[in-house]
Amino acid sequence: MACRELLLNAFDMNTVGHLAHGLWRHPRDRATDYKDIAYWQDLARTLERGLFDGLFLADTTGVYDVYGGSADAALRHAIQLPANDPAVLVPAMAAVTEHLGFGITVNLSHEPPYLFARRMSTLDHLSRGRLGWNIVTGFLDSSARATGSSGLTGHDARYERADEFMDVVYQLWEASWDDDAVVADALRGVYAEPSRVHRVRHDGPHYQIDAIHLSEPSPQRTPVLYQAGASARGIAFAIKHAECLFIPNQGRAATASLVKTLRERIAEAGRDPGSVRILTSLEVIVGQTGAEANDKLADYRRHAEPRAALAQFASATGIDLSRYEGDEPIRPAGGEAIQSAHDAITRGSATGAWTVNRLLAGMTLGGRFTPIVGAAAEVATELIDWADATGVDGFNLVRTVTPEGFADIADLLVPELQTRGRFKRAYAPGTLREKLLGGPPRLALPHPGAAWRRNP
Amino acid sequence: MACRELLLNAFDMNTVGHLAHGLWRHPRDRATDYKDIAYWQDLARTLERGLFDGLFLADTTGVYDVYGGSADAALRHAIQLPANDPAVLVPAMAAVTEHLGFGITVNLSHEPPYLFARRMSTLDHLSRGRLGWNIVTGFLDSSARATGSSGLTGHDARYERADEFMDVVYQLWEASWDDDAVVADALRGVYAEPSRVHRVRHDGPHYQIDAIHLSEPSPQRTPVLYQAGASARGIAFAIKHAECLFIPNQGRAATASLVKTLRERIAEAGRDPGSVRILTSLEVIVGQTGAEANDKLADYRRHAEPRAALAQFASATGIDLSRYEGDEPIRPAGGEAIQSAHDAITRGSATGAWTVNRLLAGMTLGGRFTPIVGAAAEVATELIDWADATGVDGFNLVRTVTPEGFADIADLLVPELQTRGRFKRAYAPGTLREKLLGGPPRLALPHPGAAWRRNP
Repeated sequence: MACRELLLNAFDMNTVGHLAHGLWRHPRDRATDYKDIAYWQDLARTLERGLFDGLFLADTTGVYDVYGGSADAALRHAIQLPANDPAVLVPAMAAVTEHLGFGITVNLSHEPPYLFARRMSTLDHLSRGRLGWNIVTGFLDSSARATGSSGLTGHDARYERADEFMDVVYQLWEASWDDDAVVADALRGVYAEPSRVHRVRHDGPHYQIDAIHLSEPSPQRTPVLYQAGASARGIAFAIKHAECLFIPNQGRAATASLVKTLRERIAEAGRDPGSVRILTSLEVIVGQTGAEANDKLADYRRHAEPRAALAQFASATGIDLSRYEGDEPIRPAGGEAIQSAHDAITRGSATGAWTVNRLLAGMTLGGRFTPIVGAAAEVATELIDWADATGVDGFNLVRTVTPEGFADIADLLVPELQTRGRFKRAYAPGTLREKLLGGPPRLALPHPGAAWRRNP
Repeated sequence: MACRELLLNAFDMNTVGHLAHGLWRHPRDRATDYKDIAYWQDLARTLERGLFDGLFLADTTGVYDVYGGSADAALRHAIQLPANDPAVLVPAMAAVTEHLGFGITVNLSHEPPYLFARRMSTLDHLSRGRLGWNIVTGFLDSSARATGSSGLTGHDARYERADEFMDVVYQLWEASWDDDAVVADALRGVYAEPSRVHRVRHDGPHYQIDAIHLSEPSPQRTPVLYQAGASARGIAFAIKHAECLFIPNQGRAATASLVKTLRERIAEAGRDPGSVRILTSLEVIVGQTGAEANDKLADYRRHAEPRAALAQFASATGIDLSRYEGDEPIRPAGGEAIQSAHDAITRGSATGAWTVNRLLAGMTLGGRFTPIVGAAAEVATELIDWADATGVDGFNLVRTVTPEGFADIADLLVPELQTRGRFKRAYAPGTLREKLLGGPPRLALPHPGAAWRRNP
């Protein structure tokens, strides 16, 4: 485990406020430029300069409207609202980079699989095989209302539908066009050999399809599959499909235990536990010196908005936290959602009641992360220790003041990690899948997606 | 009408073979690079050099499988198959241009309106207001099967559903965020004023929504609306919604008559006929001299594949033209689709039976267009005469050998049109809507989309 190179993603979103709320107000923060192509291209160049493995873009298809019973707090503080489409950023950033991966979040619940599969294939073509897909099945009730459902379908039923969705898109990506289907033979006038292109037929409870995939095979066919399921059914889904697992940061001990369990479950499922990358999220502030890093933290904190983090947390838990004040214990009552919310709030805490004050105290930079602050050497030590103690393969580093925070990581932290032999000195060649997993560019058995191929 | 500047779009598709089939085999044709970002960026730069108003990208969400009862011909000749997603090309091309418009085709039948509206808003943001949407409601039966419907819904019912879709996306684009909703006030910590953001509620037979639009207002809000409906119900839809109408090229007399009828119908609908641009499609080959242009035509023709055009025409008409040979009259029998197909085949022709040979003879460059061939002066005269005789505002110029054909237009034809005072010498400032229509950047009354605004 020791001496392995860490994976680092930048964790961001096509929005003003992602996970460190209020920082858009910092004079050097450029997050309000999220509507400009140049903003994203500059970020992509910065990340590639720092040899980041990928830019991981979160997404939400609803709004946070539990706090105070409305979206007012979300609008006022720009809590992931507005939130623009992440997928269409990829071509602009791919145009100015060569190696950086792009992990984009798409909630499959709202996508027609035939056209979704084509959009992803197109992005994989345009990025020359640098696309990852973070598979989300939806968690906001507001999202269901927005898209015309009367409410969320049951949690387990949602994953069954998701499994079926995956079967459909795997077939489109892996089974419709043979590797040698496109011959582009100008002399014979044959672009594709019809005998090597196959109709996908699927007739399931949720999806029916009878079609040739519209895109010829892209470098990776199926994009690299990310998943962040935390529930029992979500983890079962992830164990089956994911090549990269994002797990919540619950502290070292709980994370180590979860990583161990996950790798065991992956092995039980017949997959090589080493073929799956497990990442968790961290927030870091790096300075030339420890003092400079602490000054930065103090400076950033003046612009952070912990109340906004509380409003986001309200939607994550389903508890209207605007109803609680100060040191009043948060005691939600009734209902399954509230129970799981309660579990979330009390997770990792053995003693004492949760209160708004206690929650706010933990939301240093306008989010639920406790930043790791220091000179590059200190932060590098912390990251290495974290990885070695927990078994994670790397980290999603949360956006703070942007792009400054990512530039500091690229220019200060990465060289330090390289000196310790814990970060690559150059990108590996090939697609994102080859870079991340070291294997072939396409899904390999026993991954269920590969099983759909005619010659898997 | 005379002396008006013509509008020129490049008419293309994210595919190997668009409307001039076989030309991908030409040694100088780069269409097989359609999977590369650089190919599209180079094209966009070429078009902007030539002051093209826009790049209009067609799309299809099905395959042409009527000819011979399979998609074999489509695959072999790359007849709009493979066909990648056009929308995601926009950010890459917008990054290297400043003025060029992007008209992308999206079939609304397969789109969830809430997320579609966001994707379009994101593209309008990223392109700084240069997005146009060609509204399609679907025509291929294979597309319906691919997306899980058992077959196409009735033609008129489809347009009723499309009207409802428009009502939903208009509300998201025009009515959810007030113009002054985003204040981005760092001092007060307010990004958007909640009182200026409104929930869209729609409960119709086909779509239900209860949501805030996820995107803040983009430069144009609603993208410039293109439509190409040719049926009675399609024209009614276009008259109501379209800002640019694409009409089929049926020769000068029939086109002039159609333009006149359309402008009358637009006026009857209470809209200013001058507020709608009408374009038809032409295919041109321009040379330094007439002789050079004719040499080019002869050279291009050697690579054209008229049989592929026949296969595409089979899907457009619903007649399996592979069942007819040589001079055998094409006499399809029975059924409504066949009748309208028969109308299509016989349109513009008063005498004589249609045969495969007769159709093939008209498919000079692997498509249904008869190219206008000549030195710039000759082609310019032809285009100007065409516009003045028919009343169209301009042309979609079909891709031939690419990018050479568009470069010839930019470098030879455009200067000639400028000399005649019939083409702009510089782009007008502002959004695509301002450039095309000369008015405000956003929909204006009496357009029905503008009526949804709180202060229209």
